[in-house]
This record gives sequence, C-alpha cells and structure tokens, in this order.
Amino acid sequence: LTPDRLPDPLQDLVRELARLPGVGPKTAARLAHHLLKVSTVEAEALAQAIVAVKALLFHCSRCNAITAVDPCRFCADARRDPAQLLVVEEPFNIEPIERTGEYHGRYHVLLGALSPLRGVGPEELAIDGLLARLDGVVEVILATNPNVEGEATAHYLARLLKPRGLRVTRLAFGMPVGGDIEYTDEVTLSRSLLGRREI
Amino acid sequence: LTPDRLPDPLQDLVRELARLPGVGPKTAARLAHHLLKVSTVEAEALAQAIVAVKALLFHCSRCNAITAVDPCRFCADARRDPAQLLVVEEPFNIEPIERTGEYHGRYHVLLGALSPLRGVGPEELAIDGLLARLDGVVEVILATNPNVEGEATAHYLARLLKPRGLRVTRLAFGMPVGGDIEYTDEVTLSRSLLGRREI
Repeated sequence: LTPDRLPDPLQDLVRELARLPGVGPKTAARLAHHLLKVSTVEAEALAQAIVAVKALLFHCSRCNAITAVDPCRFCADARRDPAQLLVVEEPFNIEPIERTGEYHGRYHVLLGALSPLRGVGPEELAIDGLLARLDGVVEVILATNPNVEGEATAHYLARLLKPRGLRVTRLAFGMPVGGDIEYTDEVTLSRSLLGRREI
Repeated sequence: LTPDRLPDPLQDLVRELARLPGVGPKTAARLAHHLLKVSTVEAEALAQAIVAVKALLFHCSRCNAITAVDPCRFCADARRDPAQLLVVEEPFNIEPIERTGEYHGRYHVLLGALSPLRGVGPEELAIDGLLARLDGVVEVILATNPNVEGEATAHYLARLLKPRGLRVTRLAFGMPVGGDIEYTDEVTLSRSLLGRREI
C-alpha cells in the first residue's frame, strides 16, 4: 500500500506500526486495517497497555530486571539463594531461565553485550552494578547469549571475576534436546564433543 | 513466555498485542519488549496513532470507504467519472485499484461478502446503499475477491443489476503478470484460457 493515498490518521498508524521489529509496510497496513475494524474499546485497550508499560515499568535498581516495584520480585524474594548470581544480557532473558525451574538464585542484567563493532564497551554495560553486588556470592553463572558478542562478554567478565575468588561458570553448549546430529552445525557439534560428560 | 510470570503491565500488553492478526504469543512478547525499550515518545506515538484512527476515521456515508471527511475524497472528487461504479468488499481493497492508475470512476464498498457458512446474507452487506446510487451509472465493475465468497457475491449482484439495464462487468481472471504457466494452478489456467483475447 502506498501510505500517502490513505487518510492521514491511517497513514500515521501504518508508519508507527512499521517501526516495530519484524513489521514491514504490508503487515503494518494489515494491522492498521484490523485496528480500524475492531471495537474502539479493544483498540484503546491496546493503546492503554502500551502507555501503561512505559509509565509503570522500569529497571530494578539492583539487578536491572523489568519491574513495577523496586526492588523487583527476584531481588525482594528472601527464599532465593544469595550465593548464586546469574548474569544475562537483557531483562527478557530472565523469563526462559525461570521457566526451566532449575535456578533459584539471584539475577543481574547487563543491559547489553560487548560489541566493538557497534561501539559497546564495558562502560556501556551494567558491570559496576554487578561488581557492587558480589558480597556473599559464591558462584556467578554467565548466561550471556551463545554468539560472538555474548561469548566476548562472558570472557571479559570471567577475567574480571575469577581473581576475586568466585566460582565463574558458563551455560553449557551442545546439541539441542530433540535435535539430530545430522542437522547440528559443526561448531555446535564440536562444542558438544568438547563438553562431553560421563553418563 | 509464560505471561503470568511477567510484571502485570507487560502481561497486559502481551495479551493485547496477541489479539492482532498474525501475532502469536512469542511475537507479542517480542513486540512488548521492544516497546519497553524504545523511548516513551515513540511508544506514545503508536498509542496515539491507534486512538486517533478510531476517533477520527469512519465510513463514508455514500460509499463506505474509510475517511476523515464526509463525503470521502472519492465521492467528493467531481473529476471522477460518475458513470462507472466499482464495487469492492472492503475499504482497503480500494487502494490497490487506485494504485493501478487505470480507474477514474466511483467506488462502493459492500463491507463484506456473501458467506452462508458464516451467516453473512445480502442484508448484512451494503447493497441497499449500492442500489440507491445507480442514478447516472452506466457500468458497475464487480471487483469482489477472486474466491468462492467473492464470486458468489459478484453473481448475486449481477443478477440484481443486469435487469436494470446496467453494464455489469467483473475483473478478469488469468495468469499473474510475470508468472509462469508451469506454476499457475489449473483453475486459474482454465479461467485464463476461457478468457483468452485476440492480440
């Protein structure tokens, strides 16, 4: 659709929707026409939810998780093990870890990963906040992403944390459960082989 | 993501986004986190665009096109040929026709198509409005969709309009330009053959 031929408010909506990740001009036009068709109550519920998220949520002052209360429920929960600190890049990386049900310690969100190409150095990440939280911590689990930037960040943090006598661990690399050796790329397979364990 | 573990406002936003067509829970979570990350100005621009579309746009009282003024710019444009009336199912079907640059008449939007399965009969469509607009019309072009419901609607309207002495036409069926005979489905190809023209 050529947005310049649409009525102005529709044009504006298509343009705003097209700024969302993974939403091209055609999808934006389709979503805009959908919003035009639904009830005003339903459309306004979405608009209000967007405004509310920006108005009510912020980063936890301790761990940088997204929260509506400070400290967040992870930092405030006395049942969580203060000896374990799991480090992730982004707030939404916490949820998949929680879903495993295997982790009961605290979190720390770096708000990014080292990326010389994009000009992200250590001072751009919440590393000072991490170093300020190490009292009583025995193990730091580096759960940065399994890509070049996440790996670089993990190695940088390991060099920083190991001299402090902490146990520093990294999430295991290997074959995805339910996967197939034949379809596993060779880098993953080689990490999987190097990381082999006795059964 | 299990929305029940997210902070409430984020949960609300994921739920509202997941009501959009083609947006599943994972995409909704990704969009919600994106909106959380962008500036408040950008997020509010989207929210306001949604509200504005509902507050400022409505159906043209003559042709049912989406418009911010009544009558719409198609109905108000004296340069458009009043002898031609092109009938579409939905307001957003007008834009692709306009883009061809080949049509300079008026439009009429039915706001749907006949569908006995979904309980849409002639009385659910804007057919009375169409019949009320035939003064001075010479040709009615039926541009309903090339599917079962669009075809049924076109045939229903043709039976209604032809006895009134109007020229009733239907958009041509055939091979898509740039397509390939080998990859054209047999129904389309048979329509293309039946509709063959001398060159």
